[in-house]
Amino acid sequence: MIDFANTGQPSQLLIKHLLDRPLAWAPGRTVCYGEWKEMSYGQFFQRVQRLAQVLTSLGVQRGDRVGVMELDSHRYLELFFAIPMVGAVLHTINVRLSNEQIHYTMEHAEDRLLFVHTDFRALAAALLPRLPSVHRVVVMSDEAPRPEVPFKTEGGYEELLGQAEASFEFPDFDENTVATLFYTTGTTGDPKGVFFSHRQLVLHTLAAGLMFAAHQQPFGISTEDVYMPLTPMFHAHGWGFPYIATLLGLKQVYPGRYEPERLLQLIVRHKVTVTHCVPTIVQMLLHHPACRDLDLSRWKLLVGGSPLSEGLARQATDRGIRIMGAYGLSETCPVATAAHLQPDMTKWERSEQLGVITRAGLPAPLVRTRVVDPAGEALPPGRANTGELVVQAPWLTRGYFKNPEQSAELWRGGWLHTGDVGYIDEEGYVRITDRLKDVIKIGGEWISSLELENALSRHDAVKEAAVVARPDERWGERPYAEVVLREDKRGKVTAKGLADFLHQFIDQGVLHKRAILMQIRLVDTLPRTSVGKLDKKTIRQHCLGKGEN
Amino acid sequence: MIDFANTGQPSQLLIKHLLDRPLAWAPGRTVCYGEWKEMSYGQFFQRVQRLAQVLTSLGVQRGDRVGVMELDSHRYLELFFAIPMVGAVLHTINVRLSNEQIHYTMEHAEDRLLFVHTDFRALAAALLPRLPSVHRVVVMSDEAPRPEVPFKTEGGYEELLGQAEASFEFPDFDENTVATLFYTTGTTGDPKGVFFSHRQLVLHTLAAGLMFAAHQQPFGISTEDVYMPLTPMFHAHGWGFPYIATLLGLKQVYPGRYEPERLLQLIVRHKVTVTHCVPTIVQMLLHHPACRDLDLSRWKLLVGGSPLSEGLARQATDRGIRIMGAYGLSETCPVATAAHLQPDMTKWERSEQLGVITRAGLPAPLVRTRVVDPAGEALPPGRANTGELVVQAPWLTRGYFKNPEQSAELWRGGWLHTGDVGYIDEEGYVRITDRLKDVIKIGGEWISSLELENALSRHDAVKEAAVVARPDERWGERPYAEVVLREDKRGKVTAKGLADFLHQFIDQGVLHKRAILMQIRLVDTLPRTSVGKLDKKTIRQHCLGKGEN
Repeated sequence: MIDFANTGQPSQLLIKHLLDRPLAWAPGRTVCYGEWKEMSYGQFFQRVQRLAQVLTSLGVQRGDRVGVMELDSHRYLELFFAIPMVGAVLHTINVRLSNEQIHYTMEHAEDRLLFVHTDFRALAAALLPRLPSVHRVVVMSDEAPRPEVPFKTEGGYEELLGQAEASFEFPDFDENTVATLFYTTGTTGDPKGVFFSHRQLVLHTLAAGLMFAAHQQPFGISTEDVYMPLTPMFHAHGWGFPYIATLLGLKQVYPGRYEPERLLQLIVRHKVTVTHCVPTIVQMLLHHPACRDLDLSRWKLLVGGSPLSEGLARQATDRGIRIMGAYGLSETCPVATAAHLQPDMTKWERSEQLGVITRAGLPAPLVRTRVVDPAGEALPPGRANTGELVVQAPWLTRGYFKNPEQSAELWRGGWLHTGDVGYIDEEGYVRITDRLKDVIKIGGEWISSLELENALSRHDAVKEAAVVARPDERWGERPYAEVVLREDKRGKVTAKGLADFLHQFIDQGVLHKRAILMQIRLVDTLPRTSVGKLDKKTIRQHCLGKGEN
Repeated sequence: MIDFANTGQPSQLLIKHLLDRPLAWAPGRTVCYGEWKEMSYGQFFQRVQRLAQVLTSLGVQRGDRVGVMELDSHRYLELFFAIPMVGAVLHTINVRLSNEQIHYTMEHAEDRLLFVHTDFRALAAALLPRLPSVHRVVVMSDEAPRPEVPFKTEGGYEELLGQAEASFEFPDFDENTVATLFYTTGTTGDPKGVFFSHRQLVLHTLAAGLMFAAHQQPFGISTEDVYMPLTPMFHAHGWGFPYIATLLGLKQVYPGRYEPERLLQLIVRHKVTVTHCVPTIVQMLLHHPACRDLDLSRWKLLVGGSPLSEGLARQATDRGIRIMGAYGLSETCPVATAAHLQPDMTKWERSEQLGVITRAGLPAPLVRTRVVDPAGEALPPGRANTGELVVQAPWLTRGYFKNPEQSAELWRGGWLHTGDVGYIDEEGYVRITDRLKDVIKIGGEWISSLELENALSRHDAVKEAAVVARPDERWGERPYAEVVLREDKRGKVTAKGLADFLHQFIDQGVLHKRAILMQIRLVDTLPRTSVGKLDKKTIRQHCLGKGEN
């Protein structure tokens, strides 16, 4: 084999290069912050250069983590670019976590510098004394004069930018340099850090951008769209969309706090045409009284985070909104799949289409998905072949930060394990049916705990039921249920009675045969977490010693 | 700096992964060959797998060059994928070169295997005895029975595919593995090989695809388009569009031979909506009698290779065709810039828009362009700052194959030197005014030889004129002209008279002051190449000893 000449300049995939195209094509397009601020891409880039000057003058070095506690704003967008572009790591702090969790993430990330909005000054004041790694703090505010903060700072964001030069020679470096870091929380254990390189973010921007731009059904995104995020920018860097919107040169609107009436006003005022959010936000906006008389027929909504229900999708399309589900995790940057219609489906009835656009969807370009059994073997399509969804793509986190054990677990067999359970349907779409931790693996067969809970709740004596997996020598796992009876039925129905009740579903073929192995315990109440979620962790502990049949 | 955990599977950018998305989204979409053949993407992928089996059974190894002499067909598309996907290098042979040049490229590439269409059997028969590296030959044909060929073969393409299994485990390898190789010819010297890796082709596909999909003015490309190439697939792998069209799952139509009437029929029959070609093809089709009554208002045309004139753009838009210029070289894969309208320009008059869409255009995502002076220093925008266009992007050839000197020359200063002369206009668009070899560098100032030729040709005694650079001790270069006078003017006009004639243009500020340094020689004829082009190489030799003032 001949060695091909390799004399050229290898061109690295760096976030700074996402800015070249929009600055050439639409330097006058604007980035807005609510109703308060509007600036051109040209001005935006000048501010990114000033911010880079500020970062280096504050001593930020390659690889340093820079924490940000901020509302969705033009400033956050500037930080999205300037921090990675000087070679540092943007740590988008999830300000909705508990104080202890936030402290954990900042300590674990070893943030050196903190950008904090004055709305979070009490939070920062509480944490900073216990965060020795944080050497310097810059404050951001929307109020004038800026509220005092009870900790030492380097000054205000705007003053510092005002004093800095609007030019900066952004360095070249290896495209595998880490650009972003943020933490994901499960119901158990400490938050885990996921991180993405310049290469990964550029590829995610190109591939997801291409998919969303090229497909037209149920909607496409073009350079003529007006973008407003409604998933917080600290959450998987706003699903990566601020990078996509910037590369495409879209008009961008950052909304600040999520107050439904204001959000609706912003959508109208700025003629917003494309937004991404979780189903709860769609629900909240559509049901708000101020929404009733608005014309939302130019609005396109990408929904993820939790499954989009057909009911909600119908409500949105009734209003003329084009809506579509997508799927991803913090670990996947996040875009993995999106529920575009296949060519033939454009002729389908609307109700059938709703059944498609609410699926997790089809893999994005360069994404490979598989459903695997507990041994890691790939399963063929079909509902009967439910297993864990695993993913490969060039933009998945390469592990959990400073956590080699869980990194190896995440990537076992060379595939990223999503922890989600589902199957590939006949049309090739990914369907998610459960979280893996809600699945009970009985002798190689998988049964959904949610299905078992649903079945139990159909008995008219049952008030609520929780099902978890109990370790079992023979079966590996078997289902363990805690059931609270309605008060008027207590003493009248037994665990045995409930087990018999389930038999009919097994006989009808609705429930897996091995549901018969479920152990049921009647309890007075179910344990709950501080935010009111079912505390399955505690129930799992119960069953280790206390299960009854 | 903390070492970020690196436990994950690094995902390589490989051509095989371009197929995952369309096979999931639109397995039933079709790839057509003229009016003869139509197959689904699913069938296409089966044939790619069979072809991979054939390649390996014929002993193709990693890095081997596989030459192809073929019409634009579904088979060529199969070879575009299967050859790189087994790790070999696709050498797209330019069958329009002279026999000697084709022999040169195949010998230089050291092709091991040749796929040849029976239309080129005489050519192959003439070359094969002098190409010892070519061990095996597969023939392709559109005729049944297949015409006999006067050389030893492994059999016919369809028979071999028919005997092979429709499954193949495509290997993983480094994304920097070379995928394609083809030769570019200047007016001087031997053809030079340019080559592209899997990574480069994937990035070109994503970034160019994103740009063409997201922009809407003058047109956008969506998954609903029907694609037909009208630049040969051997030319810069069909401008990279077969890869883009496949990733997007477009219906694709490959036309075979370029016969105007048939091409028009195919456009109508298959409802073709998007095509790329050189201006000559647009001209040929629009002026063909069969074109007169066709409705071409759904047709979108990307034009490159040579500048798109405003006149031709007007003729096309008069027919309702949406047309746009783009710029690139074989060395650039090829897409470097495209002439999309900026946001404000959509309100402009059509005639003003024609002045935009005929420019070379704005840099594509991830492309950086610069205009540099002879010392390599970047010049600011403006026509007065004309210089050589240089480019950086992640998909430019890393050099010329087996030619380290010219590779270093191509990439001097870390930028790819296009050899094209132009400037960046006030709106940021790249404008190409000359080829570098047609520019004369007089003491650090650049004068276009084309402009000097134009000025001379305005004298009514001048039949034709050719201007080249003559080495000069004091100035570096000065212009040297050979002029043929009209027969009735011979003996009546002198070289001195012509020089005086030019003075008026210099005085008017139309011509550069240093045009005065031009040496003019009256001749009876100008030397021409075998295809009738002005032979400036010979004129340059003349001027080395024979210039007169």
